[in-house]
Formats: sequence, structure tokens, C-alpha cells
Amino acid sequence: MEAERRLEALGIVLPRVAAPIANYVQWVQAGQFLYLAGAVPRYNDEFKFLGKVDGELSLEEAYQAARYCTMNHLAMVKQALGDLDRVERVVQLIGYVSSSPGFRQQPKVVDGASDLWVEVYGERGRHVRAALGIAEIARNIPVETIVTLLIRP
Amino acid sequence: MEAERRLEALGIVLPRVAAPIANYVQWVQAGQFLYLAGAVPRYNDEFKFLGKVDGELSLEEAYQAARYCTMNHLAMVKQALGDLDRVERVVQLIGYVSSSPGFRQQPKVVDGASDLWVEVYGERGRHVRAALGIAEIARNIPVETIVTLLIRP
Amino acid sequence: MEAERRLEALGIVLPRVAAPIANYVQWVQAGQFLYLAGAVPRYNDEFKFLGKVDGELSLEEAYQAARYCTMNHLAMVKQALGDLDRVERVVQLIGYVSSSPGFRQQPKVVDGASDLWVEVYGERGRHVRAALGIAEIARNIPVETIVTLLIRP
Repeated sequence: MEAERRLEALGIVLPRVAAPIANYVQWVQAGQFLYLAGAVPRYNDEFKFLGKVDGELSLEEAYQAARYCTMNHLAMVKQALGDLDRVERVVQLIGYVSSSPGFRQQPKVVDGASDLWVEVYGERGRHVRAALGIAEIARNIPVETIVTLLIRP
Repeated sequence: MEAERRLEALGIVLPRVAAPIANYVQWVQAGQFLYLAGAVPRYNDEFKFLGKVDGELSLEEAYQAARYCTMNHLAMVKQALGDLDRVERVVQLIGYVSSSPGFRQQPKVVDGASDLWVEVYGERGRHVRAALGIAEIARNIPVETIVTLLIRP
Repeated sequence: MEAERRLEALGIVLPRVAAPIANYVQWVQAGQFLYLAGAVPRYNDEFKFLGKVDGELSLEEAYQAARYCTMNHLAMVKQALGDLDRVERVVQLIGYVSSSPGFRQQPKVVDGASDLWVEVYGERGRHVRAALGIAEIARNIPVETIVTLLIRP
């Protein structure tokens, strides 16, 4: 229950896992890997942050938005595996930031997602990463992360 | 021959697999996984849809374009494995939509790709997904999908 | 020492692996796979190319920039595995090109990264690929590649 204890110490209650609205699912276990659907900064039915970074949202707000992505991913992990401690390693995180023209601090936004993985899993939470600035995400969402995990049998 | 029968019922004849034009290939089998190259809405030598979504193409046209991506992916699977039924699970689909500024319905476009996977494979076709709006794809292509599959030994 | 010999024949001395500046790492080994962090065209502490392709950089410069991405990835492989010849297969390469509006030759840029993998590993270097044009990469970087490898036990 190590990961749960760390979440509690951070004062985080995980959101509900959103029901997929199309022909996709929130997680797929494939061999030793757990693939997670793209996560966005919502908490239950509420979008916590909307807008482009550096235009409509500050860098600090965007960082917080990225933390919500990881909260949603953690909720998917719990639903998939029953136990957050079955994560052996956070392998890869790709972060897409909806960016105003000229905004070039995407890594500082995606740090919000990366930092929470490491706060919860320590060294096992450290991952390879890319942080990219894209034109648009659905519904004016500012940041979306895609994560792949290695899991314990 | 279940997947083939479903394709036939849908009236779909798979396109030829395009020959790679550079130092890349259309599929790589790695352990239990089959990685597929990015697929675009072409049918044999013809691009079926070109242009940005919401500017040059309607949402319905873009949805159809995304279905062609999956047709090309299915053709790659058949070339790689000989038999479409060796797919154990469609694991991950990332859809990139070349988007006019302000267009934010990328998921409705990428549904075209997701839906066809599920029409062919049923529950095994459901996957984790992200749908992202990007600036440009080569040759003014409207949508490109990247897919990873789990395969049967 | 085959890969090392080929690098030497190409006159390439690998750069140092950059130290991660946040909660991420340059590589994660997960089962048979080696996941590499996004690589950019730097050589040690120097960014070799900056700017958008077709606006600030020529196509030829961008091609060279993409080669530097692979040089950095090769340096990560060496640090991770000790021996470049433990690469069984280059599996997947996703290339993101920071593109001026209307620039649609992303594949010709990413060829720079793909070509070097094949110059070093021959047939084992051929991979599935996607080449995408995005709005912005941090620090005005023109191209970033993400690579996954299959490794020998």
C-alpha cells in the first residue's frame, strides 16, 4: 500500500475513471505492459483547466493541469490492476501541450505529470519522455499525456 | 477466417501495402507485439482524401479518411502475419489530425479508424487511444494513425 | 564491435548523454525492449540546429539535424547496454518536425534520423515510422525523435 500512502500524504483522492465514449478503452494489458489511454486534466466530470498555454493559461496553471493527467492515469492503473503497487516501472510518457504560437516551454508543463509519477513511485516512477507543442486538442484541452507502464506479474 | 468474413460483409477489399520509399518498413514484429508504420488515407496509389479538416474536408469526410488508415493497417497485418485472425488484441492507436485553427473535434475524426478495428475484431479490437490536432502532415494528408498490436504465437 | 566500426567509418564520435533536468531519464529497459527519451539535435552542450524547418532552416539542414537525433540515441544505447551490438532491432521511430505553415516534407527531414540507424545497423536498423509536423518544440528545436528498440538478452 506504499503508493496509496504516498497519495494520501499528498492529499490526493483519485478521480473516477471516465467511461470511454467511443470504441476505445482506458487501459489494455499486453504481456508485461499496461498501456493507458491519453489522459487530460479533468476531475470526474469537470475539466479543471481549459485553454492554450501562455495565451489563456499561465505556465503554473498548465503545470497543475498536467498533474491532473497523472491523477487520471493513476485511477486507470488502480482500475486495471486493483493495486497501485503492481507497477514495476513507469516506462514512457509522451506529453502534448496545446501551445500558443511561440510558446516553447512545453517541458515545464509536462513536468507536472512527471513529478507526480515520481512523488508516488519514487525511482520506479522515472520514465523516458518527450514534450511536444501541438496545434489543438479536443475541447480546448491544454495538455494530454500518454503513458506506458511495466507491471509485476 | 473470422476477420476476413467480417471484412467481406463490410464490402471492404484491402488495399495493397505501399512499398516503403525510405529506410523504413511497414511492420516490425518484436516479441509478442506487431508495430505498424503510420497509415494514411490512401487506397493503392490514390490518396482518397487530402486537405485540412474543417477547412478543406468536412468532419464526415475526415471520418471516412480515418477508416482508410485502418484499411491500410489491416493490409499490413495480413502481409506481416498471413492471417488476420492472429491478432490477439489491438493495443494502442494514436491518431494525428491535420487541423484548421480552432478545429477541436479530433476524436470524432479518429473514431473512423477505431470503429473499423472494432467492426473487424469485436472486443479484441478495442484499444487505448489519443487523438491529437497537429500542424501538418506530409502531402496535405488529413489524418495519420499509428497502431500497436498484440499477436498470437 | 560491428556497429562501432561502422560509426568509425562514418567519422562519427558519439556525443555525451545529456543529464536529465527533470524527473525523467534517458532510457528505460522494460522486458526485451529499450525505450529511449526524445532526442534532439544537440552535440554535448551545443544545439547544432535551431529554428523552424522551411522558415529558418533549409531542408538539408533539417535532414542533418535529424541525424544528430540518432547520434544522441546511439549514445543513450551505449550508456544503457554497454555495447551497441546488443540491439536486435530498431522497432519504431516517431519523428516530430517543428514546421512553418505549409511545410509538408516532414518525411524528408526524418529520413536523416532513419538513414543513420540503417547505416549503423543495416537491415536490423529498419523500423516502422511516422513523420509529423507540429507547432513547437522547446527552445525552438527543429526536430525530435522517439525510438523504441528490441534488445538481445
